[in-house]
Amino acid sequence: MTSLQPHHDGSPLYVSDAAPALGDVVQVRLRVPAGYGPLAAVRTRSNPDHEPEWTDAVLLGSDGAWDWWQAPVTVRNPRHGYRWVLLHEDGRVEWLNQTGLHGIETLDAEDFALVATPAPPAWLTSSVMYQVFPDRFARSAQADDRPTPDWAMPAAWDEPVNPVVPARSHQFYGGDLDGVVEKLDHLVALGVDLLYLTPIFPAASNHRYDASSFDRVDELLGGDEAYLRLIEAAHARGIRVIGDLTSNHSGDRHEWFRAAYGNPGAPEQEFYYFTNDDNTAYESWLGHDTLPKFDWSSQELRRRFVEAPDSVVAKWLQPPFSIDGWRIDVANMTGRLGAVDLNAQVRDLLRRRMHEINPDAILLGESTNDAASDLQGDGWHGAMTYPSFTRPVWGWLSEPTHAPYVAWDGSTQTEPWFFTQPIGGIPRYTARQFVDAVVRFTAGIPWRVRLGNMQPLDTHDTGRFATNAAPGAVPVAAGLMMTLPGLPVVFAGDEFGLVGVDGEASRTPMPWGTESAPAVAERIALYRDLIALRRAHPTLSTGGLRWVHVDDDSVVFVRESADETLLVLAAKGDVDAVVPAGALPGAVAAEAVYGDATLGVGDDGSVVLSAEGPAFAVWALPGVVVPGA
Amino acid sequence: MTSLQPHHDGSPLYVSDAAPALGDVVQVRLRVPAGYGPLAAVRTRSNPDHEPEWTDAVLLGSDGAWDWWQAPVTVRNPRHGYRWVLLHEDGRVEWLNQTGLHGIETLDAEDFALVATPAPPAWLTSSVMYQVFPDRFARSAQADDRPTPDWAMPAAWDEPVNPVVPARSHQFYGGDLDGVVEKLDHLVALGVDLLYLTPIFPAASNHRYDASSFDRVDELLGGDEAYLRLIEAAHARGIRVIGDLTSNHSGDRHEWFRAAYGNPGAPEQEFYYFTNDDNTAYESWLGHDTLPKFDWSSQELRRRFVEAPDSVVAKWLQPPFSIDGWRIDVANMTGRLGAVDLNAQVRDLLRRRMHEINPDAILLGESTNDAASDLQGDGWHGAMTYPSFTRPVWGWLSEPTHAPYVAWDGSTQTEPWFFTQPIGGIPRYTARQFVDAVVRFTAGIPWRVRLGNMQPLDTHDTGRFATNAAPGAVPVAAGLMMTLPGLPVVFAGDEFGLVGVDGEASRTPMPWGTESAPAVAERIALYRDLIALRRAHPTLSTGGLRWVHVDDDSVVFVRESADETLLVLAAKGDVDAVVPAGALPGAVAAEAVYGDATLGVGDDGSVVLSAEGPAFAVWALPGVVVPGA
Repeated sequence: MTSLQPHHDGSPLYVSDAAPALGDVVQVRLRVPAGYGPLAAVRTRSNPDHEPEWTDAVLLGSDGAWDWWQAPVTVRNPRHGYRWVLLHEDGRVEWLNQTGLHGIETLDAEDFALVATPAPPAWLTSSVMYQVFPDRFARSAQADDRPTPDWAMPAAWDEPVNPVVPARSHQFYGGDLDGVVEKLDHLVALGVDLLYLTPIFPAASNHRYDASSFDRVDELLGGDEAYLRLIEAAHARGIRVIGDLTSNHSGDRHEWFRAAYGNPGAPEQEFYYFTNDDNTAYESWLGHDTLPKFDWSSQELRRRFVEAPDSVVAKWLQPPFSIDGWRIDVANMTGRLGAVDLNAQVRDLLRRRMHEINPDAILLGESTNDAASDLQGDGWHGAMTYPSFTRPVWGWLSEPTHAPYVAWDGSTQTEPWFFTQPIGGIPRYTARQFVDAVVRFTAGIPWRVRLGNMQPLDTHDTGRFATNAAPGAVPVAAGLMMTLPGLPVVFAGDEFGLVGVDGEASRTPMPWGTESAPAVAERIALYRDLIALRRAHPTLSTGGLRWVHVDDDSVVFVRESADETLLVLAAKGDVDAVVPAGALPGAVAAEAVYGDATLGVGDDGSVVLSAEGPAFAVWALPGVVVPGA
Repeated sequence: MTSLQPHHDGSPLYVSDAAPALGDVVQVRLRVPAGYGPLAAVRTRSNPDHEPEWTDAVLLGSDGAWDWWQAPVTVRNPRHGYRWVLLHEDGRVEWLNQTGLHGIETLDAEDFALVATPAPPAWLTSSVMYQVFPDRFARSAQADDRPTPDWAMPAAWDEPVNPVVPARSHQFYGGDLDGVVEKLDHLVALGVDLLYLTPIFPAASNHRYDASSFDRVDELLGGDEAYLRLIEAAHARGIRVIGDLTSNHSGDRHEWFRAAYGNPGAPEQEFYYFTNDDNTAYESWLGHDTLPKFDWSSQELRRRFVEAPDSVVAKWLQPPFSIDGWRIDVANMTGRLGAVDLNAQVRDLLRRRMHEINPDAILLGESTNDAASDLQGDGWHGAMTYPSFTRPVWGWLSEPTHAPYVAWDGSTQTEPWFFTQPIGGIPRYTARQFVDAVVRFTAGIPWRVRLGNMQPLDTHDTGRFATNAAPGAVPVAAGLMMTLPGLPVVFAGDEFGLVGVDGEASRTPMPWGTESAPAVAERIALYRDLIALRRAHPTLSTGGLRWVHVDDDSVVFVRESADETLLVLAAKGDVDAVVPAGALPGAVAAEAVYGDATLGVGDDGSVVLSAEGPAFAVWALPGVVVPGA
């Protein structure tokens, strides 16, 4: 992967319109290294209504290093796939799709793709997200006045997290929304501008994914008024707020479920999958009977949840709350049960309805494994998903020990947690495998949707990356998160250097007051600086992505736009990466903007990037001028 | 690909039940080369309702060369994907899916898959299909008594095909169904047992894809009575018959279309996509206004076409006609138009209805490019599709000239026809690329559905393979067609060595009377012998597939069952292929059953297959005994 190859992606350098309507003609462009041919022809191949359609490209011009071709593509389906075909004069044929260059025909699923549904708001891609788990973030003084609920096992803020059931979901620290308000200036200082709160509806657990209502904010968090105070205070600081909604299930204390449970004939009966005549047995999320599963064949559920003027989805998006979007929990399983698959209907319904209410709101779906089949632009603007970034980065940049830890059932485990996959712990990926995995799990996703995918190092559902990070690897991993296409996500506490072996242990109360400890201050500065880098260079949000050097220990890529090129080096060890001549035409003008590495340009135009590892460094180069465009 | 690797596929050696119902537990087996480990564990990973589920495998036993593992998989979705994960004791993790072995995580779409819809009849996979284009196959004496229709341009049987419009679809040779009856003994002698007739409904073209009715057989072919005579005569000889139905469109002379055309308010108006108020403009197949496109949102169309007791689909499946299934034309585009995609609904409807009428009937869909997304077992039992076999075999075994030929518009072309892809003619694949393409385009298809895919060298819609075949390559290509998983298809005339540069020129009248010419006799014998091979060894229909040697010029694979192993060598040139020790435990007992090649077993157990090329050879070896099963 170190020789120059033809390139295309969905970014503005290569696609004239990322938000086309059906019937629009989009100009798509291909850059081909000078001297790569001679080429007899360059074409696109689309597949409207599953029947091939071809267009011819014309040579726009050449800048000496690259020839640029352009072809029209008429958008005929909501997800309109296309690929490139290069005809060499010597008779060779090459195909280019989202996995790269091929000497044999390629799969429809891995085509580049335009999306003709309404685009998400532009702020989705320019944001840096900060994730808060309300029970563990900050506790205001008002919290002391609230009674402890029946289910809760109160814990002091500095008490260790107890991962064993029942404490696992009942241990209660009492963080609240006014606590979040009090700490908003921490978010401002960090530079994040999108706050994602895990559920704030009343429930019978510390995680609140078992909502007993979707109609009001948990009084333990301060109620509706505190939520309003938080949203207004956040908005006043330029920070957007999104909620977390369970479309797969409610809690078993939910008002809808209570109306239907043991009550055959209740209107809400059809909201759930009751499996006996007296409505006491039912389908639930992975067999947890506190989480009864919704039956989306119910039109009345669709109405109350999505369609009605005061539906759950609508209520919180509208004033006075005016949240900025939803993250949908267990989006991957929503509407799916055995022979039933209503998922596409539900996500489409959600997207359409949200667009009616507020086209400036975002819709993200949790889909923690291969999300491609659900991410074609019809529903979710992006996904909270792990195989396209998070797991590969763990695979490359971890150095797991097999230290014992206590699991949910009180047993002692020594296999490091890896996203609940029983595969012996964290796999050991080379840098090349990291890239292969990123490519594999993004190749099935249209570029526009890929940009909306959450790109965390960890979340409230995972161990924390720092727990098993190779020495010095946190800056490399965090740097990749901020510079690869996707939505960077800081899970609250990562900037304090918190660790946690699994998704429970990572829900640590925030260690406020430790900010000035040297290690913490350094980590906070790392995140602050990387976030500033991301926000100072919009090309990191929407620019194209070209890998220019990959070996077993290091990765070099560029993000490119007409305005600027960002050259990124990430290495686990010492590195002397040679980028071939022509790959970086503007390298002589490179300006270091992050990290500690050297860049040298050879007489032949090749570029050598050197650093002591682990290393993460970024240079700014001139933007890309498309000749003839 | 010449080292021994773990193996699994969907065949009976590896899957206890290929026709499970939802909820059934299927035992799946993995074979691992002895000494491949040591392995700490072997697991399966399924993804029911898009959420991972894992099972542990147990070691069944070892036969010295292979260790066999077995794990239970509960079938939870109609298409239930699963993959294997191998945990090495040294910490390495490997994944096995339908594309092979991976060091990084794999895609859902390429999982092995069980299918819980009712299975197609077993005869589908044991059949050898013979395709007849009625106007060009055989003309009975009765044909002389029929008037020539208005659209037809009569041609004598020995007149060359005229590929230029309007002759292209109007040139009329007058072959008929009693002509087919008269030649059935040719089919018997050849050994085929499934006759696929392109359309026999009345129309205004020689191809009859522009049906003017689905309710009766074209009088030019002899009408309903001749069809009945043909079906009965075929059935009497053990030959099944399937029809060809256009679900994407009718002809513009169709009785439904005439009722609606220019007649706003007609009940049949909703069957089509009229685009103006007076029903004179409408959507059609690729803009051909003789082929108005069906609108499958019409419930009345669904009723008349599929659901009613006397629907089109039902009528011909029932007595007295009792055809054995349907091949659906333009299945890929059916129900698809811009933002509308009803394809899954239509194919599901067809399959369910046909299963009600006659569960012993088959349903094949034309999907000439990447068919994977439509072939998950919900609808088509298999596809008429080209990228998974036909195009790869052309790519490897052709030696195209750029001889000029006349195209549809009368222009002279020199770019060899290649499935209407404007890519400079027939691409040049190595044997390795042939295998890569076969693997790539079958990896997204459940094994059971793959077995039903038509596997032609050519059809009425393509040039004939022999036209551009490399010297001596026809037996190799035909041999691969008969020995790789899939339904072999002989397009009438291939056994006479006919050529044809494109899909029109290949619709050549059959040269009856030339059977004893030496070249023809040799080609007929080739097909007869290969068909006999296929039918004598049922393992070639349903046995597993393992590639054991692939290089640039040759391919060696086995088809395996408990009864027998068939070892297959295909080579474009001279070959000395070395198959590593352990790959073929039964090689010492190998018995040559086809072709001219030698097999030697080395002291170390490796096997050397040698031949002068081009070569196609098959050996029978003992079946596979699964230890401990």
